[in-house]
Amino acid sequence: MDFNEASLKMHEENKGKLEVNSKVRIETRDDLSTAYTPGVAEPCRKIAADPSDVYKYTCKANTVAVVSDGTAVLGLGDIGPLAAIPVMEGKSVLFKRFAGVDAFPICLDTKDVDEIVETVKRIAPSFGGINLEDISAPRCFEVERRLKEELDIPVFHDDQHGTAIVVCAGLINALRLTNRTFENATAVISGAGSAGISICKLMLKFGIGNVVLVDKNGALCPGEEWMNPAQKEMAEITNKNKERGNLAEIMKGKDIFVGVSAPGIVTAEMVSTMAHDAIVFSMANPVPEIMPEESKKGGARVIASGRSDYPNQINNVLVFPGIFRGALDSKARQITEPMKVAAAKAIASIVKDDELREDYIIPDAFNPEVAKAVAKAVADEAYNSGVAK
Amino acid sequence: MDFNEASLKMHEENKGKLEVNSKVRIETRDDLSTAYTPGVAEPCRKIAADPSDVYKYTCKANTVAVVSDGTAVLGLGDIGPLAAIPVMEGKSVLFKRFAGVDAFPICLDTKDVDEIVETVKRIAPSFGGINLEDISAPRCFEVERRLKEELDIPVFHDDQHGTAIVVCAGLINALRLTNRTFENATAVISGAGSAGISICKLMLKFGIGNVVLVDKNGALCPGEEWMNPAQKEMAEITNKNKERGNLAEIMKGKDIFVGVSAPGIVTAEMVSTMAHDAIVFSMANPVPEIMPEESKKGGARVIASGRSDYPNQINNVLVFPGIFRGALDSKARQITEPMKVAAAKAIASIVKDDELREDYIIPDAFNPEVAKAVAKAVADEAYNSGVAK
Repeated sequence: MDFNEASLKMHEENKGKLEVNSKVRIETRDDLSTAYTPGVAEPCRKIAADPSDVYKYTCKANTVAVVSDGTAVLGLGDIGPLAAIPVMEGKSVLFKRFAGVDAFPICLDTKDVDEIVETVKRIAPSFGGINLEDISAPRCFEVERRLKEELDIPVFHDDQHGTAIVVCAGLINALRLTNRTFENATAVISGAGSAGISICKLMLKFGIGNVVLVDKNGALCPGEEWMNPAQKEMAEITNKNKERGNLAEIMKGKDIFVGVSAPGIVTAEMVSTMAHDAIVFSMANPVPEIMPEESKKGGARVIASGRSDYPNQINNVLVFPGIFRGALDSKARQITEPMKVAAAKAIASIVKDDELREDYIIPDAFNPEVAKAVAKAVADEAYNSGVAK
Repeated sequence: MDFNEASLKMHEENKGKLEVNSKVRIETRDDLSTAYTPGVAEPCRKIAADPSDVYKYTCKANTVAVVSDGTAVLGLGDIGPLAAIPVMEGKSVLFKRFAGVDAFPICLDTKDVDEIVETVKRIAPSFGGINLEDISAPRCFEVERRLKEELDIPVFHDDQHGTAIVVCAGLINALRLTNRTFENATAVISGAGSAGISICKLMLKFGIGNVVLVDKNGALCPGEEWMNPAQKEMAEITNKNKERGNLAEIMKGKDIFVGVSAPGIVTAEMVSTMAHDAIVFSMANPVPEIMPEESKKGGARVIASGRSDYPNQINNVLVFPGIFRGALDSKARQITEPMKVAAAKAIASIVKDDELREDYIIPDAFNPEVAKAVAKAVADEAYNSGVAK
């Protein structure tokens, strides 16, 4: 199937993919007077008297803004806010499809960090949560950090944390299948941008034995001159043995390879130098660091990728709908690290012991249990840790 | 019917009134690959290459932001952005119900004119039009003027222009019924805020013979000390005979009274001093300047109000859905004065000669012909005057 042609046709025939509908009927003058003036003044008065009532009487309770500046859209790069709209509409469609969340695309005509932060803060009253999307690094780190500090609704950069959560969910099951634990496993992550760093941080939360981030310049290690501030910070808390070298060198003997970098940079030969029962998650899109067949040739036992035409697809759609469903249901003020850990565990738990196989460590994107389990785990954690309003 | 209680119940049961839905089905992996990655990259590429394609492939083509800072909500005043949400959701519901426009509430956490303008400009990529709502005067004038100058999508402050258009539609028919023309008619407008001034400007476009704006301090007349800048400007182009005095004095001998001011300030006695076959549109809400029965006692021949429990309801819902439908259909860069005149004429034209009566000068809010006629007239005018993209 030619998805490009099919997609153009779908988008043109429907003039985009989203619509805004009324949940109430307006057929009579009384309906008008109830949904609009004069009756609508009453919920307004209630909210003016007690702002927390906004969650009782308005769509804020179920609505998320999908915010992008269009600077890092798919593999297309900085294509601007107009060209980013189809992706943000798509994301919004998936929010509704998989978790009943009303999501709306906000594409910003600015790339300035201060302006992005200001703008999102100013439009926040209408929304119950903010999903940041396709904002290029390192700006995305500061945008997310500041919005988390300054807003009392959850803010989540899906490119970072969605990916990290589903990777860790896959690793939980890959380690389970190969009788290892995070503690006694070692890992290399290829790609030290926003996704790689976020995956690394969550692996550390899971207690990974050792993890080394590798960029095109080589392994992140204290003292390397080429590292940016975010990478310097990571170098301090990873790479226990202060390994230096290129990706091929660092992969030797490691249990886990996670790729969020560039197509075709890993060979079967390189995989063959990894530990026995190697785990290879190769997620560059659409062409991975190494194709699954090649990983197999190199002796990898558990293989995952970002592709839908191979088993074990690492797909953020397993994460963001349920994460926000849980955060909205619990009126969480933010999405914390423990909530992300709970989400990863919930996704992994969908694959039962008697179902777990090399080609089934990640549940299917259409499995309706996933978003439910994630939402419940996230909401439970929010209540337990006092993050819920 | 107690609309306050019914409204609270409706809002609580539905958690607000709006939802965001997908126009496409996502049931298979192929659907996912078409609506989202990898297929979605293709419309993104097309728009990156030719930004005008955003109208072909995205929901921008049919989407309007309903923007408020919550400073002048209904008769409730400055209740803030959260408490304004029910009204903006209601407005959005009506956009869909009456003209198939997808409208989304954006309630702003700022009252600063510069910040409002900046913020709306930055979020504009997602939207095909901006409906400003319940922003207090005089800030609303500058916000609208600057946004019209700086954006290439239509910007419309409904509280000003929606009201002006439906009032003028009513006046067209009231004058038709009483065998007068705008040119040989005289008018007084009670209330020289944003609505009064906007009504006055549109009456001038229709060629009204003479019109005097009256504020609580008296008639607007060059040299009066108490006038604000917007009022000073109006004083220069109205009040041909330089009349000074209070409302009772200015009403004497006038053909038309239009009230957008305060409840109960006009008496039957005052109406009785107006010209023969007086036209009285008394629109303070929910209690008008003078109740229709009292206007009748004072000898008025054609009476309209903002109330749904009397004939001839002056209701903005007759205007804004069709105005934006026409502007979006024609991809108009703005909503011009001739487009507003065309809209008023279209509304008036719904009432046919053989239907025109004292108690039927304004079509019913639920008449499905209204939005269609307004949209067509507005789009035609946009094409004719080169405002369409």
